[in-house]
Amino acid sequence: MSSAGGSSELSTSSASPSVRTESDAFGEIAVEDTRYWGAQTQRSLMNFPIGGRESRMPIEVIQGFGVLKKCCALYSMSKGKLNKDVGEAIVEAADEVIRGKLDDHFPLVVFQTGSGTQTNMNCNEVISNRAIEILGGVKGSKKPVHPNDHVNMGQSSNDSFPTAMHIAAIMQAHGVLLPGLRELHDALTAKAKEWEKVIKIGRTHTQDATPLTLGQEFGGYAAQVEYGIKRVENTLPSLYRLALGGTAVGTGLNTAMGYDEEIAALIAEETNLPFVTAPNKFEALAGHDSIVEASGALNTLACSLMKIANDIRFLGSGPRCGLGELSLPENEPGSSIMPGKVNPTQCEALTMVCAQVMGNHVAVTVGGSNGHFELNVFKPVMVANLLSSMRLLGDSCSSFAERCVSGTVANRDRIQEIMSTSLMLVTALNPKIGYDNASKVAKKAHKEGTTLKEAALALELLTEEEFDEWVRPENMIGPKAT
Amino acid sequence: MSSAGGSSELSTSSASPSVRTESDAFGEIAVEDTRYWGAQTQRSLMNFPIGGRESRMPIEVIQGFGVLKKCCALYSMSKGKLNKDVGEAIVEAADEVIRGKLDDHFPLVVFQTGSGTQTNMNCNEVISNRAIEILGGVKGSKKPVHPNDHVNMGQSSNDSFPTAMHIAAIMQAHGVLLPGLRELHDALTAKAKEWEKVIKIGRTHTQDATPLTLGQEFGGYAAQVEYGIKRVENTLPSLYRLALGGTAVGTGLNTAMGYDEEIAALIAEETNLPFVTAPNKFEALAGHDSIVEASGALNTLACSLMKIANDIRFLGSGPRCGLGELSLPENEPGSSIMPGKVNPTQCEALTMVCAQVMGNHVAVTVGGSNGHFELNVFKPVMVANLLSSMRLLGDSCSSFAERCVSGTVANRDRIQEIMSTSLMLVTALNPKIGYDNASKVAKKAHKEGTTLKEAALALELLTEEEFDEWVRPENMIGPKAT
Amino acid sequence: MSSAGGSSELSTSSASPSVRTESDAFGEIAVEDTRYWGAQTQRSLMNFPIGGRESRMPIEVIQGFGVLKKCCALYSMSKGKLNKDVGEAIVEAADEVIRGKLDDHFPLVVFQTGSGTQTNMNCNEVISNRAIEILGGVKGSKKPVHPNDHVNMGQSSNDSFPTAMHIAAIMQAHGVLLPGLRELHDALTAKAKEWEKVIKIGRTHTQDATPLTLGQEFGGYAAQVEYGIKRVENTLPSLYRLALGGTAVGTGLNTAMGYDEEIAALIAEETNLPFVTAPNKFEALAGHDSIVEASGALNTLACSLMKIANDIRFLGSGPRCGLGELSLPENEPGSSIMPGKVNPTQCEALTMVCAQVMGNHVAVTVGGSNGHFELNVFKPVMVANLLSSMRLLGDSCSSFAERCVSGTVANRDRIQEIMSTSLMLVTALNPKIGYDNASKVAKKAHKEGTTLKEAALALELLTEEEFDEWVRPENMIGPKAT
Amino acid sequence: MSSAGGSSELSTSSASPSVRTESDAFGEIAVEDTRYWGAQTQRSLMNFPIGGRESRMPIEVIQGFGVLKKCCALYSMSKGKLNKDVGEAIVEAADEVIRGKLDDHFPLVVFQTGSGTQTNMNCNEVISNRAIEILGGVKGSKKPVHPNDHVNMGQSSNDSFPTAMHIAAIMQAHGVLLPGLRELHDALTAKAKEWEKVIKIGRTHTQDATPLTLGQEFGGYAAQVEYGIKRVENTLPSLYRLALGGTAVGTGLNTAMGYDEEIAALIAEETNLPFVTAPNKFEALAGHDSIVEASGALNTLACSLMKIANDIRFLGSGPRCGLGELSLPENEPGSSIMPGKVNPTQCEALTMVCAQVMGNHVAVTVGGSNGHFELNVFKPVMVANLLSSMRLLGDSCSSFAERCVSGTVANRDRIQEIMSTSLMLVTALNPKIGYDNASKVAKKAHKEGTTLKEAALALELLTEEEFDEWVRPENMIGPKAT
Repeated sequence: MSSAGGSSELSTSSASPSVRTESDAFGEIAVEDTRYWGAQTQRSLMNFPIGGRESRMPIEVIQGFGVLKKCCALYSMSKGKLNKDVGEAIVEAADEVIRGKLDDHFPLVVFQTGSGTQTNMNCNEVISNRAIEILGGVKGSKKPVHPNDHVNMGQSSNDSFPTAMHIAAIMQAHGVLLPGLRELHDALTAKAKEWEKVIKIGRTHTQDATPLTLGQEFGGYAAQVEYGIKRVENTLPSLYRLALGGTAVGTGLNTAMGYDEEIAALIAEETNLPFVTAPNKFEALAGHDSIVEASGALNTLACSLMKIANDIRFLGSGPRCGLGELSLPENEPGSSIMPGKVNPTQCEALTMVCAQVMGNHVAVTVGGSNGHFELNVFKPVMVANLLSSMRLLGDSCSSFAERCVSGTVANRDRIQEIMSTSLMLVTALNPKIGYDNASKVAKKAHKEGTTLKEAALALELLTEEEFDEWVRPENMIGPKAT
Repeated sequence: MSSAGGSSELSTSSASPSVRTESDAFGEIAVEDTRYWGAQTQRSLMNFPIGGRESRMPIEVIQGFGVLKKCCALYSMSKGKLNKDVGEAIVEAADEVIRGKLDDHFPLVVFQTGSGTQTNMNCNEVISNRAIEILGGVKGSKKPVHPNDHVNMGQSSNDSFPTAMHIAAIMQAHGVLLPGLRELHDALTAKAKEWEKVIKIGRTHTQDATPLTLGQEFGGYAAQVEYGIKRVENTLPSLYRLALGGTAVGTGLNTAMGYDEEIAALIAEETNLPFVTAPNKFEALAGHDSIVEASGALNTLACSLMKIANDIRFLGSGPRCGLGELSLPENEPGSSIMPGKVNPTQCEALTMVCAQVMGNHVAVTVGGSNGHFELNVFKPVMVANLLSSMRLLGDSCSSFAERCVSGTVANRDRIQEIMSTSLMLVTALNPKIGYDNASKVAKKAHKEGTTLKEAALALELLTEEEFDEWVRPENMIGPKAT
Repeated sequence: MSSAGGSSELSTSSASPSVRTESDAFGEIAVEDTRYWGAQTQRSLMNFPIGGRESRMPIEVIQGFGVLKKCCALYSMSKGKLNKDVGEAIVEAADEVIRGKLDDHFPLVVFQTGSGTQTNMNCNEVISNRAIEILGGVKGSKKPVHPNDHVNMGQSSNDSFPTAMHIAAIMQAHGVLLPGLRELHDALTAKAKEWEKVIKIGRTHTQDATPLTLGQEFGGYAAQVEYGIKRVENTLPSLYRLALGGTAVGTGLNTAMGYDEEIAALIAEETNLPFVTAPNKFEALAGHDSIVEASGALNTLACSLMKIANDIRFLGSGPRCGLGELSLPENEPGSSIMPGKVNPTQCEALTMVCAQVMGNHVAVTVGGSNGHFELNVFKPVMVANLLSSMRLLGDSCSSFAERCVSGTVANRDRIQEIMSTSLMLVTALNPKIGYDNASKVAKKAHKEGTTLKEAALALELLTEEEFDEWVRPENMIGPKAT
Repeated sequence: MSSAGGSSELSTSSASPSVRTESDAFGEIAVEDTRYWGAQTQRSLMNFPIGGRESRMPIEVIQGFGVLKKCCALYSMSKGKLNKDVGEAIVEAADEVIRGKLDDHFPLVVFQTGSGTQTNMNCNEVISNRAIEILGGVKGSKKPVHPNDHVNMGQSSNDSFPTAMHIAAIMQAHGVLLPGLRELHDALTAKAKEWEKVIKIGRTHTQDATPLTLGQEFGGYAAQVEYGIKRVENTLPSLYRLALGGTAVGTGLNTAMGYDEEIAALIAEETNLPFVTAPNKFEALAGHDSIVEASGALNTLACSLMKIANDIRFLGSGPRCGLGELSLPENEPGSSIMPGKVNPTQCEALTMVCAQVMGNHVAVTVGGSNGHFELNVFKPVMVANLLSSMRLLGDSCSSFAERCVSGTVANRDRIQEIMSTSLMLVTALNPKIGYDNASKVAKKAHKEGTTLKEAALALELLTEEEFDEWVRPENMIGPKAT
């Protein structure tokens, strides 16, 4: 039950695989021949046996790098800095990275160099070796496609990794997070409409309060999610700003004037999304406030969703000894010992996601606060937590919408029965008999276990006709028309 | 050294003060006669001896209530629901609350009812007793101004407390937070301009890197604060939405149609700020995502400021054994044992504020996630932490700008001396002699403790003239003009 | 509604108070003559207008300094390094600090120098001026009692502030935190005993489950608090380790061999608590892991208490539309609009405290992680948050025990009524008719709204006599005797 | 770049794999025939497409279940409740789970039912099908080994999952965490010894301070880790308490008296670790304070390690423009653009781990605070975060010890050079010429850029001989012998 070393776990473990020799500034090193990666990736595998497979760099970052490397090759070709054959092979290899065909060739973990340099090199090495292969060359020869000179051309890890971070975050937001949130919003909105006339008891301080409709209650949830979507969207402009062109410290050393804007335009075109170059590259390398900001929007969403899922499981509590206003869909057998029991499992998965997102947010915050000088070196842990939160929220909202909200049924009889016993309908009498008298009625009924009407009549504060006219839940669910 | 009971500490402790009798639904209770508060406040004082003076409800919430109670009285008068004499006395008393004249009459702590009901009642009681006094009546008589019937007219704690929260947050944002941030932004921008030609070594991974100007470095800080200001401003629209008109559960029971919009307009007029009624009152009572969102913007700022203050103290480290690039202003004697030592105390205060803001954010998050049904009952703790963060950030940014940034001096000789020894200027040779050769030069110089030029000449990779022409820091601080 | 500057707020604001001149290495400065503090305190007041009164250094730290300064004077006298008259006057003044007589003379805020130097100097200045006064001298003259040479004799802020932190934390733990926890533990244990025969429905996943006794449920809460007390006690040994004797960087420069142990012994004697000298002074100045550890124990408690208070408010929800198993004591009128409503306000205060404690813990953690080299300079914010958490937990547990738990009543009829309708009693049939048949009974009863017995008989799985014999809640609350 | 659905990703995706039919209370469902899992696992795979492969239930939990299921079978056999053939096949299958031979058959994610029921069923199903296979039966037939009746015999998910949590945590602590911490402690201690005579400048507030030895500095780090190990060990007794025997709600319904103690003894014997039965099963199911407690110890460690790694990277900053006191080992090429640069990558990996651990701690805390009634349903997310923190800390400490600390070299010349220029040696003059004069010397030297000696002589405060005798760093690194 020991911790399998990250490196051995991540490389293949079969007996005597065929290897080739790769090299870097540190010298030669053996790499399993089925892998496209090179010396620096192999070295990182050996140097960071931390966390194992679960801690792998998110594949979305790799895909973001695919976009970046492709666009850089296109740029370099257009400027005549890159031979067309080499450039096109790089583009083809990068396209394979984007489409996920080479996922197994990116074995590095998050807990590596804090600039993500080794993942940048992993991308350079895989793309160059794959491009070499496309061109009929020998993997590891660095000819005719050199990982540094051709694939990394004009880039530094320091500006390319944060660019890949932003591309990955934006694509995760559009691909997983926002669709999941919208699915949940739609499901809640549909229920708000379906139940717009189901009057129920309200609860404040967990205590009985004045009535509202079940539709109003779910409309409140829908509004929370709607605002949550807006909050996520508000963070996208920061994420559309790309660091590329800042190179090592933000100055843009070794790039050409205008490169930053042109490369951002190429990335925008490739992704069909409004990426722009970051106006201040020093900020873009040294801080990652945009990541913290985005994580903050997810943290707010986690609060909303924790509240919504808690409400739904309490409203669905029972079947006999709880509130019992809702029946949640039965998706699987519940207890392994208690037959017939069905649990609010989608609520549980969603609230666990919320706890994780709040935790991830603190990890992002700690990372974001610890940059020094020209470079924040918590890049991998920051983007990994942000992407994790986006993925988990998107996936779980979608599942919650489909497998819980949409199939939830209002137990209308139970809702009506509970509400009709409530003492809080007495509030309707406030304008009629005054706060103090209304209070007396409620207290008397409470003490004696009677209905409000019985108590009110016993106190001779009104007639039965008046009571029936004044205490009507359907008149208590909105302001008075004037 | 025991914990003084909150209640005794908060009320006066002098011998036998004169008391009067106040009453509420629970019966009579003695209140010190110099105080305007009534029975419910007194009861809360006795029931929540938690945390003492440091835990008092922030005075900004009380001021927000002052605005609210004033506007409600104006509204009720305008609708003929409130006698003009009574209404005007309420307005006068509420104005005194707004102006801080009655601060000593709001002794309750944050850790009370989670809806803030007791603070709402504290406001009702103080305003009614003060209004009674204005009108020549007897405090505690509830005549002619009743705390519930007149001051709380048409409101519930459940919609009035969150309204006061939002008013307080907005006023703290405009009154303290944003001015402090702008002051800091201006100070950083001025330094970025002042030092735009001071070339220095860059540092990535805390290691020597390629050069940039000190102005660029401070320009990065300025950009972080500029974006931080924008992030705060992005949260204001959520805070401008007011819950008032939702009454107990969000339905607006016992209010008139249109009341919510009219009262928001009155508050907007009173404050000259664009408050609007919340489109969904259920969301506005049951969740406080807007508070979490605003806290999230402050959390992002805390990350930025932690980074900036850390950089400045490291750049100012020394005087002889550190980096020594900056000299920070000496504001006070430093060590009590080490003469002549001056510490980066403003950086320390600011970074401690950042730690507090990150902690406050988690308190806000936990509170925001724990609402149930129609009411979140973590209102006081949420607003107290948000206001604390705003106040601390505003105050400390202002102090940091004035007492640290503005007075900081660049040690130009030291900056030049350090930079000129750096091996990283070798990067300028990349395009000339290739990456691998440049690397050899740097490694040789590093190993032998020589200058780059000496190493490059020894390796016979270029001439002295070429070195002098190619390795020029002033050409390394931006992209090449094309 | 602006932020009153901390300095002006904290000093007196009355017209033209009489002032005297104080001086330090920076020169002369005016101090209001009624105050004992000197130049460095006054300078700090002006330099750190951050957060105002709510952000004052906790008085417990000042009291810890009182103990320290007294013991140092006793030590110095015993070694003949301090004149007896001067020493005794210092002791007398320090005793006044300990007893809280001079609280108004410690106006500095938490957000100052991160080593707490200015609070150390505040103590030195107040004690020296008060001692001068006792000896008939002139305040501000530094004769015959000099704040540095006599009161601070042999100490550095760097070892004295963390010593005061630990003394303060220990005294808060023993004085407020542990008594409050024990009070709550006793109250819960008493209820567990009182209700040991009250059988009720269990709830897992918020859904009906097999029965247990209300006493067992509260016994679980009591166990959580019992373990929580143990967890706090486990952190005390770390806090008993005192940094004093490390002086500026941990080496003990300018102290005599053995001083550290002797001074710790004196502090132990003065407080009657087992303080010892820290075995490693470098750790004691540069890290504050002991504070983080202690805060961690409070964070665990916050989790326990959040759970317990949530349970109690849900069990007490109603009065008619909730679970209604418990009736919580009515301590004050509830809603300002809904007559007769009583809210679980003590639960709300306690859960808000829990949110605050979790937030404080993150502030402590961030501070604890950010020390550099020989000194952590987040000392004030760390100790302030720890003391706040201790105080809030101690106060609120005590209040919760007294005003909620002890007065809570079990609604035995309601508890019995709910339980008897539960489908989950079917579990008792598992060993008799098998899991699958038991499941069928439960599902049939659930679907048709009948009792379990009716369903079981309809399915002809057993006789009525067998059902009555087998399904007995009192046989379901423990393992079978074998 | 879309989010691959969890379920499809986790099951195999090859064309038309052979399937068999499995069934549960919900009916029949197809399962790929190469897999041992059954209907409930398959259903969970389809119902919780959340997070994908990265979110899989930690394998350590599965292994903990292996231990548990094995011991339960042994217990049942010993009591004659389980047929020997069936029991031995279960034991054999469980042993395969423990040894990791069946890892691919546990595809479920963390974000499922909050009680972990589905993972419990996954274990029951895999073990029963594997045992059936061993006995020559047909997978899916539930004969002769039934997943519920035989493998889950006498257990509930509610007591078995927390038992597996504790076993997993304990084994991770002993297997990965503590060995890594001890390795780091040893490496730091060795350096403390190696450098015990290397005198260097101290730094407080990041500013020059009085000297200490590099050995003392690293001894402080070693002490932090030593205490951290002790803190982890302090949490183990809580984790040794096992919930098993509580069954569904803590009462032990359907178990035999004494079962809880006997099964804990069997687990202790199987693991050779001092597991005991939890004295209070209600606490053990409804709260997970022990997990929060353990996570708190890791959070404290994260603070220590963040500090240590930060120090080491700053002390190793340079090579020419930083502090340069240490040279860290070069493990890989650094920058992809700056030749010759080597970065403190192990420090970066470790500090990213610290950020993650702090975040994980908040996730654990939020989960721990949100239990309701008889069951906390954040079990999977809590244990996953705890195990992640343990694994990451253990792995990274080991790597940091081996690849950074052990290979770090003290640059003795540079250390001596820096120290000798320091003004802070002036502190040695305090006892000789007084605080004020010493301060004058330091200020003069600082202002004029001279050495201390030059300044002191110019001020005629002492002779050169006196200076040389009094200002000796080697006399400043400890208290005076008396």
